[in-house]
Amino acid sequence: MSPAKADDALGAAASALLGDRRLIIATNRGPVSFAATSDGSLRPRRGSGGLVTALGQVGRHVPVTWVAAAMSEGDRRAASDLKLLRQAAGGDDAVRLRFATVERSVYEQAYNVIANPLLWFLQHQMWNLPERPVIDASTMRAWERGYVAMNDAFAAAVLAQTRGDRQPRIMLHDYHLYTAAEPIRRARPKAVLSHFTHIPWPPSSIWLAIAPAIREGIAVGLLANDVVGFQTARYAHNFMRMVETFVPDAKVDYQTRTVRRRRRTTHVRHYPISIDVDATTRIATSRAARRRADQLLGATRERVIVRVDRLEPSKNIVRGFLAYEALLQRHPRLRGRVSFLAFLVPSRTGLREYGDYGRSVQNEVDRINARFGRAGWRPIQIFYENDYAQALAGLSIADVVLVNPLVDGMNLVAKEAVVVSERDAVLVLSESAGAFDQMADGVLAVASADVLGTSQALMAALEMPIEERRRRRAKLRRGVEREDITWWLRRQLEDLSELKR
Amino acid sequence: MSPAKADDALGAAASALLGDRRLIIATNRGPVSFAATSDGSLRPRRGSGGLVTALGQVGRHVPVTWVAAAMSEGDRRAASDLKLLRQAAGGDDAVRLRFATVERSVYEQAYNVIANPLLWFLQHQMWNLPERPVIDASTMRAWERGYVAMNDAFAAAVLAQTRGDRQPRIMLHDYHLYTAAEPIRRARPKAVLSHFTHIPWPPSSIWLAIAPAIREGIAVGLLANDVVGFQTARYAHNFMRMVETFVPDAKVDYQTRTVRRRRRTTHVRHYPISIDVDATTRIATSRAARRRADQLLGATRERVIVRVDRLEPSKNIVRGFLAYEALLQRHPRLRGRVSFLAFLVPSRTGLREYGDYGRSVQNEVDRINARFGRAGWRPIQIFYENDYAQALAGLSIADVVLVNPLVDGMNLVAKEAVVVSERDAVLVLSESAGAFDQMADGVLAVASADVLGTSQALMAALEMPIEERRRRRAKLRRGVEREDITWWLRRQLEDLSELKR
Repeated sequence: MSPAKADDALGAAASALLGDRRLIIATNRGPVSFAATSDGSLRPRRGSGGLVTALGQVGRHVPVTWVAAAMSEGDRRAASDLKLLRQAAGGDDAVRLRFATVERSVYEQAYNVIANPLLWFLQHQMWNLPERPVIDASTMRAWERGYVAMNDAFAAAVLAQTRGDRQPRIMLHDYHLYTAAEPIRRARPKAVLSHFTHIPWPPSSIWLAIAPAIREGIAVGLLANDVVGFQTARYAHNFMRMVETFVPDAKVDYQTRTVRRRRRTTHVRHYPISIDVDATTRIATSRAARRRADQLLGATRERVIVRVDRLEPSKNIVRGFLAYEALLQRHPRLRGRVSFLAFLVPSRTGLREYGDYGRSVQNEVDRINARFGRAGWRPIQIFYENDYAQALAGLSIADVVLVNPLVDGMNLVAKEAVVVSERDAVLVLSESAGAFDQMADGVLAVASADVLGTSQALMAALEMPIEERRRRRAKLRRGVEREDITWWLRRQLEDLSELKR
Repeated sequence: MSPAKADDALGAAASALLGDRRLIIATNRGPVSFAATSDGSLRPRRGSGGLVTALGQVGRHVPVTWVAAAMSEGDRRAASDLKLLRQAAGGDDAVRLRFATVERSVYEQAYNVIANPLLWFLQHQMWNLPERPVIDASTMRAWERGYVAMNDAFAAAVLAQTRGDRQPRIMLHDYHLYTAAEPIRRARPKAVLSHFTHIPWPPSSIWLAIAPAIREGIAVGLLANDVVGFQTARYAHNFMRMVETFVPDAKVDYQTRTVRRRRRTTHVRHYPISIDVDATTRIATSRAARRRADQLLGATRERVIVRVDRLEPSKNIVRGFLAYEALLQRHPRLRGRVSFLAFLVPSRTGLREYGDYGRSVQNEVDRINARFGRAGWRPIQIFYENDYAQALAGLSIADVVLVNPLVDGMNLVAKEAVVVSERDAVLVLSESAGAFDQMADGVLAVASADVLGTSQALMAALEMPIEERRRRRAKLRRGVEREDITWWLRRQLEDLSELKR
C-alpha cells in the first residue's frame, strides 16, 4: 500500500470507529510536559520516547484527546489552564491535552515503587530472584494507594472527557495503566475500551512470584477492556495463560483468542508497533544528520559496528561488548580495522540498578579499549547523550547494527536501522526482541546470553557479501514499510470497529 | 490401596515391563560412592539426597542395574572391581552397581561448568540475567567436551549392561543426562527409554537466552526417549512449548501429549515424585528421633514454626525470615511465645552464590534475633547440619511448617511434614513448588516473593482451630499415602509397558 493509500485507509478506519467522536488516549507520559520557569510562568517541553513518538502520529489522522499523568509540579499547575494546554498542543484542537492529577506522593508510589521498579523489572525478567523483589507492607500500600489510586484518577480524567457519550472510544497504554479500565467500564458499560502493553508479557511462572492481589488485580483489570493488545503472539499467549492460571472465573479460548468472564468478552490480540518511516527518513537525511554522519565516518575505520540503546540493563550492552572483544581476540586481522560506535541514552539515572549497570558498561569499555586499542585506534567509542539525529546518523553509516537485548517488547532501533541504512547494514538481532518475530528472515539471530554466538554473528555480518546484504536489507525494509506505525494503528481501529458491529 | 497391594501392583507392573530383564537406571549420583582410606583400600559410603532415596526403593521391587557417574577417585578405582561393587550393593545382586567413567577434567566440565552452574540456575530461574550467564568459548567447550562427552560415557556404560538385548529397559534421570538417550537409541533402536527430570522445566523464554546448540541439544537429546517425564503438568507443557519453539522438524500434539519427530514418537508425561511413607515414619518414630524431638520441644516456646531445607538460594530462606520478622513486628503478643526452628543442610559450599547466600541468611537471622530476642528467648534457632532424623524430629513437633521456595521441582519436605507431624501442623506452601499441584487444597498458599502475604499465612496458620488443622492434615496425609513413591514408579513402568504393546 502506498503511503497516501495507507493514510486514507487509516482515516477510513478512524471514521468507522469514531463517527464524530474524538479518540481518547491515555498514557503515563504525554506529548508535552511543563516546567516552571524562574519568572513563574510555565514552559512547555515536547516529550520524546518511543510511545509518545508512535502515538504522536495518531493526531495527524483523527481528533484526539490525550490524557497523561501530571508528572511534574508544572504539569499539575498546567492541568487547569485549558488555554495553555491548547497552545501547547498546537492550538488547533486536533490533539487536546488533559492531565490526570494526583498528589505527588501518590504518583511517586505508583511510578517509583510499582511501575518502574516492580513491573518493568518483572516484565523484563531482570530480577535476581533470590534477593528481589521483596513485597512487603509498603509495597502493598504503594499498590493500593499509589498504583490503583493513580489508575482511578486516570479513569476519572478520561470519564470527564466523555461527557454524555455512552460509548466513548478509549485506548489505554502500557504498564502504568493496567487497572484504569475497570472504573471506566463501571461508569460506561458500553464504552469501547482497549489497552496496549508496549513491554514484554512474561510467562506465568514469573508472575507467580508476586502477591496475588497485584497479579490478579492486573489480569482482572485488563479484562475490563474489549481488546487487550500486545507486541507479539507469544506475549498474547502468555497473557491468556496468566488469566487461566490466576483468574478462576475466566474462560480462555486459545482458538478465538478470547477470554470470557462475567458475561463479558475480551479479545486478546497482537499488534507489533513500528516507526513512522517518512519522519524517520526525514530526520536521518536532514542536513545536520548527514553532516554528523560524515564526521562519524571520518572518525572510524573501514568497518563500523553500531548500537543505539537506552543505557538500561535489559539492553544487554555488556555482553555486546564482550562479543566484540571475542571477535577481536579471535580475529587479529580485524584489529585496527573495525570501529564499534555505541550511542547510549542515559535512562532512569535515579535507580541504583541503572547506575550500577552504567558503571559496568564503562568498565568493560575501558578494559577492552585498554586491551586492544593503540595509537589512532580506539576499538569502542561511546556517545552518552540523547541525540536522536546523531543516533540515526550512526545507524546510517553502519556495516553491522547490533541489537541484542535480553528481552524487549519490540525494539524500534531494529526497524530504524533498516530504514536509514546507507550501507545495507546487516542486522544482528536477539531472538528475544519482539521485533524478531517480524524480522527473523532477514537478520542474523543471536541468543542474548550467548556471547560466543554473538561474536560469530558479528563476524558473519562483517564477511557477508554485499549482494547478500543488499538482498536482506531490501527485504527487511519492505517489511517495515508495509507494517509501519500507520498499519499498527489502523489494525487496532479496525478490530475495535468490527467488534462494535 | 493398602501398602501390600501397592507393592503387588508395582511388582506386577515391573514384571509386565521387564519380563526376565533387569531395569537399567542411570543417575549422576549413585547409591554408593567410594573413598580411598589411608591404607589404600576403598570404603563405600551410602549416598543421601532425594533422588537416591527415591530410586533406592526401586531395587526392593525389581532387579536393577544402576549406572552412576564415577565422581571421586575412589569411584574411578572401584569401577573395575566387580566384587567390591557387589559387596557395596548388599551382595545379593538385586541392585547391581556400575560406574560411568570419564577423566576427571571431563567430569568437572560437565558437572561444575554446565550441570550445576548453568542448568540448575537456569531451570530454577535464579539468574541475574543482566549479568549472568555469559556463554563464551569455554562454556561451549565444556558443553561439547564435558557434558556431551559425559553423556556419551553414560550411554556406553549403559550399553555395556544391555549385552545382546535389543530391547533393554532404561530409565535415565535428571539434568545431568539430557543427551544420553541419543547414542543409546542409535545403538539400540528398539530400546525402551525414558528420562525423568527431577527439577523444574522453565518456560521457553528462559531457554531463549542460552546458546542454540545447548538448548536444541537438550530438546533433541530428550526426544530420543520414548517417554520424558516431569514433576508437574506445567513443566511437561513447558517442555512441549520448548520443543515447538526450538526444534523445527518436531510436531507437538498438546492433546495426546506427544512429540513426533523423524518417525519417532515421544510421550510427554508428568509423574509427581513422592516419599516412602513407611521408611519416613520409621525414622521419625525411632527412639533417637523421639528423644531429639523431646529435646527440641524443651527448647521452644508454646508455638513452633519449622523449616527444613538445603541451604540454597532457590529455597527462599531469607524471605521466610523476613515474613517471620513482619509477624513479630505486627503482633507483639507473639513475641516470646513462638519459636522458629530452621534445619538447614549445607549444600554446594564451593559455589560462590551459595556462600554469599548463606551469609545473607545468617545476617538476617542475627539481625532479627538481636531486634526481638530477649533473655531466655531466641526468636530463630538455626541447625546447620545434615541430620535427617533430627530434621524429621523438628517437623514432627511443628505447629506450622514453612515451605516457600522460589521454584522447586517437587519439594519432598512438604510431603514428609504431613506424614510425620505429631501436632497436625499447618503447611504454608509456595505455589511455585511442584508439590503445590497435589497439595493445594490442604495448604495455605503463598507467592514466593510476597513477604507480607507469607507473614499473613503464618499468622493464619498459628490461629487455625485444631479441628481445621486436623482435617487439613488428614486430607493431605491421605494424598501422600495414596500417591507415594511406589505409585510414582508404578505409573512410569505401566506407561512404558503400555507403550511397548
